Parts: sequence; C-alpha cells; structure tokens
Amino acid sequence: MIAKKMKPYLENNSAIRAMFEEGKRMAAEFGADKVYDFSLGNPNVPAPQQLKEAIREILDEEDPVFVHGYMSNAGFEHVRKAIADNLNERFGTAFSNENLIMTVGAGSGLNVCLKTLLDPGDEVIVFAPYFLEYGSYIRNYDGVLVQVAPDTESFGLNVSDFAEKLSVRTKAVIINNPHNPTGVVYSKEDICGLARILEEKQKEYGHAIYLISDEPYRELAFDGAEVPFVTKFYENTMVVYSYSKSLSLPGERIGYIIIPDEVEDSENTIAAATIANRISGCVNAPSLIQLAVAKCVNAGADLGFYDRNRKCLYEGLLRLGFTCVKPRGAFYLWVKSPVADEKQFVEAGKKYHILMVPGSSFACPGYVRLAYCVSYGTIQNALPEFAKLARDFGLG
Amino acid sequence: MIAKKMKPYLENNSAIRAMFEEGKRMAAEFGADKVYDFSLGNPNVPAPQQLKEAIREILDEEDPVFVHGYMSNAGFEHVRKAIADNLNERFGTAFSNENLIMTVGAGSGLNVCLKTLLDPGDEVIVFAPYFLEYGSYIRNYDGVLVQVAPDTESFGLNVSDFAEKLSVRTKAVIINNPHNPTGVVYSKEDICGLARILEEKQKEYGHAIYLISDEPYRELAFDGAEVPFVTKFYENTMVVYSYSKSLSLPGERIGYIIIPDEVEDSENTIAAATIANRISGCVNAPSLIQLAVAKCVNAGADLGFYDRNRKCLYEGLLRLGFTCVKPRGAFYLWVKSPVADEKQFVEAGKKYHILMVPGSSFACPGYVRLAYCVSYGTIQNALPEFAKLARDFGLG
Repeated sequence: MIAKKMKPYLENNSAIRAMFEEGKRMAAEFGADKVYDFSLGNPNVPAPQQLKEAIREILDEEDPVFVHGYMSNAGFEHVRKAIADNLNERFGTAFSNENLIMTVGAGSGLNVCLKTLLDPGDEVIVFAPYFLEYGSYIRNYDGVLVQVAPDTESFGLNVSDFAEKLSVRTKAVIINNPHNPTGVVYSKEDICGLARILEEKQKEYGHAIYLISDEPYRELAFDGAEVPFVTKFYENTMVVYSYSKSLSLPGERIGYIIIPDEVEDSENTIAAATIANRISGCVNAPSLIQLAVAKCVNAGADLGFYDRNRKCLYEGLLRLGFTCVKPRGAFYLWVKSPVADEKQFVEAGKKYHILMVPGSSFACPGYVRLAYCVSYGTIQNALPEFAKLARDFGLG
Repeated sequence: MIAKKMKPYLENNSAIRAMFEEGKRMAAEFGADKVYDFSLGNPNVPAPQQLKEAIREILDEEDPVFVHGYMSNAGFEHVRKAIADNLNERFGTAFSNENLIMTVGAGSGLNVCLKTLLDPGDEVIVFAPYFLEYGSYIRNYDGVLVQVAPDTESFGLNVSDFAEKLSVRTKAVIINNPHNPTGVVYSKEDICGLARILEEKQKEYGHAIYLISDEPYRELAFDGAEVPFVTKFYENTMVVYSYSKSLSLPGERIGYIIIPDEVEDSENTIAAATIANRISGCVNAPSLIQLAVAKCVNAGADLGFYDRNRKCLYEGLLRLGFTCVKPRGAFYLWVKSPVADEKQFVEAGKKYHILMVPGSSFACPGYVRLAYCVSYGTIQNALPEFAKLARDFGLG
C-alpha cells in the first residue's frame, strides 16, 4: 500500500544501505582507523568556535520565546538582512532581506525552487556527473530530468550538448559550483557562455528558463579559483546555499535561497517560494541555528585543512599512476577507474578497506569519487593501500 | 511561470498576510499591550530551563563533528531509543528506535506520511473543523481531501458522517487529538468507535486504511482528560508528534513519526517513510535540537500556565454571554459567533483590538478560534474589551 512513486526508491535504497552497512561492518571488524572511508560528504572539520559562542550568547541573552518561536516563514528578517548585507559586500550584489528565504538546508532549498516552478512534464536539465538526488527532487513535482553528457576532457560545462538538450519544455537548469563530484570550478566565462545560450532560448521559446545554482561549496575554492556569483550574469537565476560545508553543519539543515529582483515576476515568485517552504511542511528553517549563523556571516571553512588533504590525496594518487581531475573546489577528487566497469574497481578497493563511490552513482560510470573531508591521517594511511590497489590494476 | 499548483495559494495568501500585517500595524499604532492577539498558536511559555542546559551540555561535552553532522536519515539512534523508551513507559507500548523517524516538526511528519502512502486521486478524510494546512499537505501528493461535517453539538468525531464518507478510494484518515481549533479531547471510546468502522471497511475494501494521528498537543490536557494512544486501538496507525507545544519549540521544527510494527508491511513502510524524509529535501531533522530533546523526554509543558488561561478566558466569556465549547486540551477556545457570518464578528472584534481567527479558516464557519497561549495579562485586559463586544451583539 506504499505509494507507487516510492517503490523504485525502496529497491535502490537497499543498495545504498548495503554500502553504508558494509562501512560500519568493516569499521567494527578491522577498527575505524584501519578503514579508509572516502564515501561520505560529512565534513571532518569541526564547526567554528564562533558558532558555539554564538549559540551560547543567544541562549543567555535572548528571550527563549523569541529564540525557539515561530517567525515569518521566510526566516527572521534580521537574519536575512545580515546575510544579504554580507553577500552584497562580498559580491557587489544588491539583495535585501526580501530576496532571501531561509530553508532547511540546500536539499529543501532546491525542493522549494522546484515546487515553485514545475508543472508536471516540465523538463529540468542537469549536467552529468551530478548528485543523483536531483532526480528525486525533480520527480517530487513530476518534472522530467534531462541529462547533459559529461565533457570527459575537462568535466566543465558541456555547452554544445546543453544547447541540444534545451527544448520548449525546459523550465529550469541546475548547476552545482564548485562541483560535486568532480571538484571542478566553473569560471565567469563558463557561466557567461551558459547565460548567452539561455537568453537566446528564452527569446526563441518566449518563456523564462530558470537557472538554479546549487552552491553549498561556494567558499571551498583553492589555487585562487574564483566562484562567479551567477545572479550577476543571468537574470532568471535562483541561488541555493547551505551552511553544511562552510560551517560544517550538515546535520543542522540550515541554508537559504536567493530570488533576486531581476527574476521574472519576482514578487510573486518570492511569495510562492515562501509558501512552498511552508506547505512542504518545513514551515520555516530551524530558529536557533538561523540566529546563530547570522552571527557567523564572516566565519568560514578551514580552507587550509581541506587544501592540505586535497594536495596530499591528489598528488599521492597521481604518483601511483591514477588519472584524476585536478580538484579546484569542494572536497572531492574525481578519479578515472583503471577498468571500464568502475564498480569492479570500487569492489577491489574494499579488499584494502578503501571505500569509494562509483561514478554511476553520479550518472557517470568509469570514474569514482573520493570525499577528502576526512582526517589528514586517514589520507596518509590510505596511500600505501592505494599503492597496493594500483599494483593490482597494473598502474604505476 | 510559477507552477499552476502554486497559483491558488498566492491568491489566498494575500488574505492571511493582510491579517498578519493588520496585527503588526495595530501593535505599532496602539502599543503591543493594547492589542489582544488571540490569532497565533505561538506559545508564550518559554522552553524549559532543562532544554537550555541540555544544549549547553551538548556543546560543552560532545564533539561538534558529531553534534552538527549527518546521522541516519531517520535520526540519531540513541535519540529515537530515548523517546521510544519514554513512550513505552508512559503508554505501555513496545516501540524500538526502528519505529521512530525524527522529522522537521509535525508539518514535515505529516508530509512524510502522506508522501509514503498517497497515489494521485487517493482520498484522505479529515474531520471539520480542521487545520486548513492539511489540505495543502494532501494536495502536495495529488491526494483528494474528503471532509466530514462537524458535529456542532459536541465537536467530537462525527462517526455517522465519517462512515458515509469512507470509500474504496480512502487511503488515510487524519485526526488531531487534543484538537485544534476546538480544544476537544477524543476519548478511548471515540477512538475505539473509529477503529471499529475502519476495520470493517478495510475488510470490505480489501486494503489498508491508515489512521494518521496528529498529536502536537498530546501533553496539553486538563481536568484529568486522558489522551488515548491510538496505536493501541488500531493497527494501521501512524502517530505524528511535535515538540512545538510541549517544549515551546515551534520555530525549531522538531518532531517525529511513529510507524508501529503492527502497520501492514511495516518494514517497507518505515523504509519508504525514511526515504520520503530524505528526498523531501529535509534529509534529517536538525541535529543539535534532536540531541537536546532526547535529554528532555521527561520535561513537560507548563500545564498550570495554560490551565489558568483556559479557565480565565472560558469562564470570562461564558459570563459575558458567549457560547463556547469547553476546552479540555490544546490551548484553543472555540467560540460560537453571535452572528451567522463569523467574519463580521471577527471584524467587529478589531474595533476593540481583539484578534480572532474565523472558523471558515478551519472549514467551519459560524465559530471563531481564540488561542489562549498568550500571557495571563493579555486575557485579563482583553475581558473588558470582550464585554464591549458582547454588548454590541446584544449578549449578556
């Protein structure tokens, strides 16, 4: 008697659950320090001390009826203003609190955008490889996911295939920058190229096409890579953000969406998104943590931690003969599988207690994803095991 | 370009927003202490001191990577176990952590249940008067809301109309106990009567009918009223709970659903609900507050506060000649409008700075709802204004 729409998830879920259980089983059997789990995007960096102090201050100084009470469905006004001001300062934008809606993380933010926009049958374009959950989110509103083939040279935006996949049914396009799972950072030129095509097609089809920019890794960029602020390059843009990675708060479910004034019919779109946030059942983003992040707008991720991991793992694997995309953002390394069926490679890794995610979990077989948001020690200890794995596949 | 499904909400929303704005405008014009706002279910009782101490303890003693990190989509196991143990102790149930899924409040919990169960066109029965948001939640999954007429004698469960509204398309029934907006508490006999009908109809139709019991006011019962634990009386029950009222945490969005082993195909149903929680975009309930409520399973609402308000307002209005349903639970008083069109009565109240919600907002015109979760002073100061209002309508 479970809804028909939920049944396929149940079947797929068992595979994911089996992987998770395997990790737990291995940790129990061999000891957690002897298992090299690169499968999860759960930051190993603690939330900044400033956040802890912010929570304490709020609990000590504010009225609990205010701290834990209902506020506007879009979030506390002063919280949205603090974040808008910070964005304006950093990116030269001109957002007011009205342009921001606080959400239950980026997952909920994406759902709010899609619920606001999609009619059944509307197409949403995503670039492979991509976070498979985008598909679940699009199906929630009976939308149709249309996939752009990966550019396996650079793993940048495959604009030629993109132009072909656009159709009169395209309602939205999702990009993710910096990129999970490849670690690629799209440049200003990449975004401008995308925007040009979208503008042309909007004219041709005579309706808006929305660019939804999913940016939980915005602050995680290395080697001086700049992450362009997409609203400046394309009018019908919605930005989805989460504090999961920048403040290491993935469990807290706190983020926001931005709907700029430049978006078509922005007033109604903002109102509809605020209602979507409410009727999804979320009602509003969690209150205490909203207040806390507003006090931490200038706090950032420990970039040095991730950068050291990045270099150690990337250079270590290159030395062993692996082929990897050079990661410039997020905390993922995208490695070419030495055999076409990357699931075989993932399986072989388990022998050495190395846990990786197959590229097919991102609609891009032939590759694997390593999340290097683990401790530095895990990477150091994993490299000799990767060396054995490399030998098994005739590398080096 | 907003989704067609969202458009009716935009139109209705302006009315609700206008009401909210009016309250703010009145507070600014006349002073907050001269406005008697009985419109909102935002508890005026602070969260218990124990909660604040629990949060402090967690921040001081636990690893922030654990406190703010991802956990199982169903919630921390030890949190679910602590809650299950507490329920088992209080109600003689036999839940394990597996039967509980922590959710982003009851709103999200209801959505998780409905997403798990509903195919398009499935009917969900609700008893008028009811929280209109149920309709939004049901429409989220293309379900059809079927309304049982109110029993305007007792405002109990109108079982005769209920039996007529059940059909082969009925997938679920939502009840709310203690009841918003009437303050009624359904007894064990009421629940048993409902269960008997449901069991018969399940047999007749040859499929499960789920009873979804929405219980955010479970602990708010007065005069020794007992709130029956529904899973003990009907097998296909799902319970939805929130800490919004009992711990005064409405903004924190923390609650849970219970899916007992007795539910048909419970293992798959629990798995599907856990996935629904994830793919709705919530992923999991907020982590810090999950940990905090687990340390407060024995903390409760300040019943004395609400009881004093209840008596003062109920008795005060009776003395003025109003007709009210005697409230035995939640924190609402359901008052018969002295004129058929209760909106006229609500409008007249504004002259005396009294804000009430018309019964038509609960699909039950002719009545108004007063939320008495305000300060005692507000009630005391409002009574002379109610006296003027009563005189205007020839009462007393």
